[in-house]
Amino acid sequence: MPQPKDVKDYIRTIVDFPHEGILFRDVTTLFADPRGFRLAIDQLLNPYAGLRFDKVVGLEARGFILGGAVAHQLSAGFVPIRKKGKLPGAVISEEYTLEYGEAVVEVHDDAIAPGERILLVDDLLATGGTAEAGIRLVERLGGEIIGCAFIVDLPELGGRARLEAMGMEVHALCAYAGL
Amino acid sequence: MPQPKDVKDYIRTIVDFPHEGILFRDVTTLFADPRGFRLAIDQLLNPYAGLRFDKVVGLEARGFILGGAVAHQLSAGFVPIRKKGKLPGAVISEEYTLEYGEAVVEVHDDAIAPGERILLVDDLLATGGTAEAGIRLVERLGGEIIGCAFIVDLPELGGRARLEAMGMEVHALCAYAGL
Repeated sequence: MPQPKDVKDYIRTIVDFPHEGILFRDVTTLFADPRGFRLAIDQLLNPYAGLRFDKVVGLEARGFILGGAVAHQLSAGFVPIRKKGKLPGAVISEEYTLEYGEAVVEVHDDAIAPGERILLVDDLLATGGTAEAGIRLVERLGGEIIGCAFIVDLPELGGRARLEAMGMEVHALCAYAGL
Repeated sequence: MPQPKDVKDYIRTIVDFPHEGILFRDVTTLFADPRGFRLAIDQLLNPYAGLRFDKVVGLEARGFILGGAVAHQLSAGFVPIRKKGKLPGAVISEEYTLEYGEAVVEVHDDAIAPGERILLVDDLLATGGTAEAGIRLVERLGGEIIGCAFIVDLPELGGRARLEAMGMEVHALCAYAGL
C-alpha cells in the first residue's frame, strides 16, 4: 500500500502564473490523483459530518469540480455562481473589486429558496472578493450559509479575516505563507 | 414520498439564449434539485457499472460540475479540459470550429498517463466540436476513452454521429429534437 499523503503533497506550485511574481498553487494535480481527490473531498466535508445541507454553492470554475463532488456526497443540490452573462435564466448580480478594476458574479434568482442551508466551496481563498460576492448573492436569496470551505488558504491576503468579519465559519485544508 | 421524475422533468428551456432562435436546455435546474442531481449522476454512470476508470475528464465549465461528482463516485481522479490560457502548467492544445471562428481547448500535458482508462463527461452534446477536441487531447496523451457521457443530446446537430464515427461509445440521458 502507498504511504498516506497530505493534501499539500499533491498540490504543485507554478512560478510566475498568471503573471510574474505569483506562486500559483495548482490544485489540478490534487484533483487528478484518485487518492488526492478523495482525500480532499473527505477533509473538506469532515467538519460538517452530521449536518444537513440543501444546496452546495460553487464558484466558477474550479469550485464547480469540488462543488459537484461535495453536493453528490451530501445528496444536496448544486448551484453555480458564474461570471456575468453565462447563466441563461433570470439572475441577481454582485460586483467585486479585482486587482485592476471590477468584476461581476451572478446566480439564478430561483436557485436558492429562503431558509435553505448552504455550503459554499471554492478551491482557493485569497483576498476573498469573489467569495464575499458569492455570500452576498446567497444571502440576498434568503439562503443560510452554514460554512465556507476551501482547499487552500492564503491568509496574508486577508480573505479568511474578511469572511470571518461577515460572520462566516471558514474551513480550509491547508495554508501557504505569502502570495 | 414525491413521485419519481425523469431527468427531462428537471431541465428547463430558456428561449432565445444565448441569442435569438435558440432554445437553451438549462441543466442548472436539474443540478440544483437534490433528487435531480442524484438521478443525473446515477443514470450517467449506469452503463459503466462494474468497469474501472482511472480518470474522469470534464469539459469547461458545466462538465466540471458533473465530472467532479462522477469522479468522486468512481473513486477516480478528475482532469479539466479548459479554454486557452486558463491552465497554469505545461499544456497541449486542440483547435475546434465554432459557429463563427475557432476556439482552443487545453489539457495539462502530464494529467493523463498512457493506458489510463478515461470517462469523458459534459452536460450537452450539440455539434460535438468541443467533445471531439477533448477526445483528441486525451488520445494524444495516450489515454483510452471508455465512454463519453452527456446529460442532453441534440442529435440533429450531429455530435453523436461525429463521435461515433471516431469510434466512441456515446451515452446521453435524454434527447431533444431541433436546436
